[in-house]
Amino acid sequence: MALISSDRTRFPSDPWRVVETSHAPGKAGALETIFALGNGHLGIRGAHWSPADAALPGTFINGFHETWEIKHAENAFGFARTGQRILHVPDANNYTVVIDGEKLTLAGSTVLDYRRTVDFATGIYTTAITWECRSGAVVQTVGRRAVGFAVRSSLGLSLELTSDRMVSVDITSSLVNRQDQPVEDHTVADPRRAGRHAGRVLEPLALDGSGGSLRMSWQAAESKQRVGVALDHAFSTGVQPIDTVVDQDVSSVRYVLAIPAGETVAMEKSVSYAVAEAHEDVDVRAAAAAELRPVAEIFADSEAHFARYWATSDIVVGGGEELQQAVRWNLFQLAQATARADVAGIPAKGVTGSGYEGHYFWDQEIYLLPYLSYTNPGAARDVLQFRHNLLPLARERATELSVDGAMFPWRTIAGLEASAYYAAGTAQFHIGAAIAFAANRYVWATGDTEFRDHQATDLLVETARMWVSLGFFGADGAFHIHGVTGPDEYTAVVNDNLYTNVMARFNLRAAAACRRDDVSDEERAVWQEAADRMHLPFDRTHNVYAQDNDFMTLEPWDWNTPREKYPLLLHFHPLVIYRHQVLKQADTVLAMFLQWQEFTADEKRRAFEFYDPITTGDSTLSACVQGIMAAEVGHPMEALEHFTEAVFIDLDDSHNNTVDGVHIASAGGIWSSLVSGFAGMRDQGLMLYFDPRLPAGWDGIDFQLKVRGGLLGVSLTHGEIAFTYDGASRLSLKVRDTVVAVGAGQPAKVALKDDVKLSLAE
Amino acid sequence: MALISSDRTRFPSDPWRVVETSHAPGKAGALETIFALGNGHLGIRGAHWSPADAALPGTFINGFHETWEIKHAENAFGFARTGQRILHVPDANNYTVVIDGEKLTLAGSTVLDYRRTVDFATGIYTTAITWECRSGAVVQTVGRRAVGFAVRSSLGLSLELTSDRMVSVDITSSLVNRQDQPVEDHTVADPRRAGRHAGRVLEPLALDGSGGSLRMSWQAAESKQRVGVALDHAFSTGVQPIDTVVDQDVSSVRYVLAIPAGETVAMEKSVSYAVAEAHEDVDVRAAAAAELRPVAEIFADSEAHFARYWATSDIVVGGGEELQQAVRWNLFQLAQATARADVAGIPAKGVTGSGYEGHYFWDQEIYLLPYLSYTNPGAARDVLQFRHNLLPLARERATELSVDGAMFPWRTIAGLEASAYYAAGTAQFHIGAAIAFAANRYVWATGDTEFRDHQATDLLVETARMWVSLGFFGADGAFHIHGVTGPDEYTAVVNDNLYTNVMARFNLRAAAACRRDDVSDEERAVWQEAADRMHLPFDRTHNVYAQDNDFMTLEPWDWNTPREKYPLLLHFHPLVIYRHQVLKQADTVLAMFLQWQEFTADEKRRAFEFYDPITTGDSTLSACVQGIMAAEVGHPMEALEHFTEAVFIDLDDSHNNTVDGVHIASAGGIWSSLVSGFAGMRDQGLMLYFDPRLPAGWDGIDFQLKVRGGLLGVSLTHGEIAFTYDGASRLSLKVRDTVVAVGAGQPAKVALKDDVKLSLAE
Repeated sequence: MALISSDRTRFPSDPWRVVETSHAPGKAGALETIFALGNGHLGIRGAHWSPADAALPGTFINGFHETWEIKHAENAFGFARTGQRILHVPDANNYTVVIDGEKLTLAGSTVLDYRRTVDFATGIYTTAITWECRSGAVVQTVGRRAVGFAVRSSLGLSLELTSDRMVSVDITSSLVNRQDQPVEDHTVADPRRAGRHAGRVLEPLALDGSGGSLRMSWQAAESKQRVGVALDHAFSTGVQPIDTVVDQDVSSVRYVLAIPAGETVAMEKSVSYAVAEAHEDVDVRAAAAAELRPVAEIFADSEAHFARYWATSDIVVGGGEELQQAVRWNLFQLAQATARADVAGIPAKGVTGSGYEGHYFWDQEIYLLPYLSYTNPGAARDVLQFRHNLLPLARERATELSVDGAMFPWRTIAGLEASAYYAAGTAQFHIGAAIAFAANRYVWATGDTEFRDHQATDLLVETARMWVSLGFFGADGAFHIHGVTGPDEYTAVVNDNLYTNVMARFNLRAAAACRRDDVSDEERAVWQEAADRMHLPFDRTHNVYAQDNDFMTLEPWDWNTPREKYPLLLHFHPLVIYRHQVLKQADTVLAMFLQWQEFTADEKRRAFEFYDPITTGDSTLSACVQGIMAAEVGHPMEALEHFTEAVFIDLDDSHNNTVDGVHIASAGGIWSSLVSGFAGMRDQGLMLYFDPRLPAGWDGIDFQLKVRGGLLGVSLTHGEIAFTYDGASRLSLKVRDTVVAVGAGQPAKVALKDDVKLSLAE
Repeated sequence: MALISSDRTRFPSDPWRVVETSHAPGKAGALETIFALGNGHLGIRGAHWSPADAALPGTFINGFHETWEIKHAENAFGFARTGQRILHVPDANNYTVVIDGEKLTLAGSTVLDYRRTVDFATGIYTTAITWECRSGAVVQTVGRRAVGFAVRSSLGLSLELTSDRMVSVDITSSLVNRQDQPVEDHTVADPRRAGRHAGRVLEPLALDGSGGSLRMSWQAAESKQRVGVALDHAFSTGVQPIDTVVDQDVSSVRYVLAIPAGETVAMEKSVSYAVAEAHEDVDVRAAAAAELRPVAEIFADSEAHFARYWATSDIVVGGGEELQQAVRWNLFQLAQATARADVAGIPAKGVTGSGYEGHYFWDQEIYLLPYLSYTNPGAARDVLQFRHNLLPLARERATELSVDGAMFPWRTIAGLEASAYYAAGTAQFHIGAAIAFAANRYVWATGDTEFRDHQATDLLVETARMWVSLGFFGADGAFHIHGVTGPDEYTAVVNDNLYTNVMARFNLRAAAACRRDDVSDEERAVWQEAADRMHLPFDRTHNVYAQDNDFMTLEPWDWNTPREKYPLLLHFHPLVIYRHQVLKQADTVLAMFLQWQEFTADEKRRAFEFYDPITTGDSTLSACVQGIMAAEVGHPMEALEHFTEAVFIDLDDSHNNTVDGVHIASAGGIWSSLVSGFAGMRDQGLMLYFDPRLPAGWDGIDFQLKVRGGLLGVSLTHGEIAFTYDGASRLSLKVRDTVVAVGAGQPAKVALKDDVKLSLAE
């Protein structure tokens, strides 16, 4: 089952690289994900340059998508109407290399040496392959690529060839516009669109090219978004192409040359993309061309970016090289998913694949924004600004759903609800609280009062209005929220989901503390009242908070269910899953992590011990949170087990779907597992709080957090946690029951007793 | 809003006919339903013979349908896969009549006199129209039609013409194969079916015709069911057609003749249909031709059938002519939906339209089989035999849904689940209990021990196995059934729906009393235990049974919602409806009607008084049951109001969807309203029980029931209920607390005190 961690000969551990030392069939798609590059805007999968060796190649631009009218087999009022899916943009990673008449492919040629790497320190992807050609020549090819960061639309590729003897080389370098885009296409049966081909999603607008350069543009058939591609080739020897073919599907540039023995020739391929919305008056070809950069400059751009990134965002784990590699790979993915997304959502797979259709979920607020808020607060602000920009659509959606304020779509690209199964989609009202919570955390961590007084207030107020109209004061005097689905999608449309109610309570209280002209004291008072009287289901038999009003009455799941019947959703009708006590992820435990100050240590322990054994972990969002809370409540072994599971989810393809892209939320959960799990950081209280739980086998953990404009260094070892801080004013911190101040030139350290089971409650 | 009852000039009351005395635009489709003919197998809507005057013409054969693969916008394990929809078969009701060059249409010609009738006593549809032609001639046309009963595949039509002066007549009589069948057709986008036309569902197999006769056959593109049509024309004057056109879409026979002044000429058109399944080796054209009958014979067949029908199935209501007409119209619809369905399901609309896609629901067992069991027990047996035939598919479906035994589809034609929205479909497990209940009632009413020991036992045992595996013994010791939807679809996927649990309890107990070789004493004991410990949710605050475990905690509905926002499902997202205390139909009240002996009079009264005010009646299944229970619990005014609403649902098109076909379940509910509501009949106890509630303004009610092989005559007046019985052995009956015996030559009568609020409890 495992991939990277089970074969250290093929995938040697290296703290700064992911490395593959031999090619083998199988899992090629998952490896393309693991070796993918991206900058949050533009992403390219780690496919080999030879099309014969690529499994699921692709290049993506965050938010560039197609739409279609969702056809419900049985429709009802308010069901999602607009399908949205990220598109493959024309892919430049495509070479056919013919040496002395032999086409080089991993599948068909003799390979003497092979090494594929992605270097976390530079962001550069490399394949170095030594081929024994049938002509007798031994040829080395080194393919490199990187995406830009300062210039986020650029992609640089290079291919070097060296031979031990004179060889003839025939290279065709292509730009491939994929025709079989996996987009729902009902329009082919629409007589108004007669002549449209099934699967033809990107329709050509303007196609030009000559002398190794291409200037092209396409338009998505329904969304009318446009993409422009500019592409230049350059050969180190100055050789010119013998042909430049321009086509809406496959365009190509062909070089024929001879390489003398021992010489290295290099072909550079610089690519730039530009996108525009239907309504934007942008010449996307010109915009793409304007951003073209020499390939060396793009590589340098990537190197410079990652040098800065690791300087403040690295987490050094004293737990062995294999673990360090896996941790850095996850941190590298977080950077690749977010660095230059700018004002946009972060897709569940970043820009590494089309999984989850490129949609934005609550994951970005709950799993990704902790990382962003403390390492790249500007990017966190951008994500929240993106949500703020969706408010007008969210207000319309609220009206459709008979609630006030704003109701955010469960999954979306363009801002419209795209979840066609409401029970596990629209019913997840909790996304509103996730956005409010993330906005509040961003403000708390940064002290950005400008954002607090405008965007954050809007988000808090509009979601509070949604909650107070969705719920009601019951005959028992408590405030109830019925008919919702919590994060645990293995129960659906339940009453008083604890996670939802806890987060809504936070949301209402935080909104009640806001000031906005159109919010009266009376309205604030109702929010406060609803929050104060929020019903939290509690089961007296087990002395534990209940996931919802009915959860404790459900039938136990049959835990003799064979392993191949998981994930359950693929093998059981939803009705079967919903009526049993079985969890996809433990949302009650998650609520106690996010609203940590609202529950006693004992309540958290009992909840963890009750829910952890009945949680399947079918969701990749599960392991990291279970690990964090296992650490807090005093189950160090389970903490380490969950963490190890989480850190290898993609590297070991343990959910068998890494081919679809990196699980970015889980990668965010790795950051939280280290910072909040083992280092025990909690925020949004009076001051930043630490209650460390360093695993017994680890030497320590070192990381930095951007807090209130300064950089807080944290160094945890057994027996001590040490802090530095370079902010303008001193920062008070609490470590268990000790308060310390840290400031410029004023480091601080706190001795830790061995008892890692210390309670958080005071 | 109202139709028939609001315009007694246009629709005069007549106890034996539905009559329209003038033509007017608007509601034409609803009137085609109201004037439809059928025999349970073959049905034809009451459309005018001129295509220009028809709104939604159609001919249907019960069970003749198309299939398609259901495309779910978001699919999951076990979702329904096979869409099924009743098809329009080629329609013979189509004439173009040209007099002296003028095409006669109601829309365009001068009409001196007009009368459309359906005669309940004979089953004959007549349109008698006097036309003033532009040539000056006054022409009368009399169109008649009837379907066969002894020969159920036959349809006879005649058209008589009489003129006050010599006229030239040019008649084209057509058979129209409708091309725009409203069937989901994903196959047009399927490259394997290239060349198929969108909407072409019936594909021609063999088309022949000459001399006024047609012999044709078609095949449904996907289901591969075949239909053959044989059609002959005959003119009273012996005139021969000048042309016979054979075509896959519109075939026609044309006559040109002159009619002398004062003479009547008649054209007879005899039609016969035959259908075959894909696997059946049947020549459908030959089979259709073999059943062709002279039109006069078909008319006589219909007359004879209804003479027999009314002799035993009439209900005479001493409540005025308008009410009698409406009651007989409903009883006439029941006969038309069931008489010759033979071993088949009864579609929700009978054979009067394609509403609900021609599917079979639980309605047939709960709303229709009471009527059938007591008026046409052979037909009741056939319906149950149809369900029994589905057992192999229902066992497969049970496995898919992780339950034992048999799980019947919520809606189906071919036996496969066709409900694409499981929350209001598959989740309605209660259909299993409905089938068990109907089988038990049939056996109880008829004493059919052969059926009891075989089919009924199979149905009871297989559904009991489903229940006992679906539910479980909870920590509280009670048996619970979670994650189901009751008949009230305005809450969905709830825990311990009272209706479901009460009916499952009956089902388990009845099964435990069965004997089958593969059922052990231990298995029966578990059923009995589950039944005895069945949880019935009860609310102590209101001292009333709760619809489910959570219903009483829901938010009250806003009853200021404007009337145009009903039915709610068309104006609110399901999540909004589900989280409020608002009912589509009161299923708790229904449970107390069906399992009357299990609840005290006080429990029933409190339930009615609690649920009736929060029931929208958005379902046409609602009014009749509410009326029956209003009568029982002592609300005579509400009883009469609900009954009156129910009896005019289609005649007044009060739900604005009568165009789609007759609401057969509601018609069945009318029978139950009279027999069980006002006459207070209850069954399945030790003996047949009566607790009458004759409305104050009515003289009486007279009806007959087929009970244990004999005919029980019941005559209810104020102060007395009288019985006759012609069965082989005497029948004991209970009237309130009086037991009487009735037998051949031994009538019985029981005096009734005025107090109609007498309790059923003893």
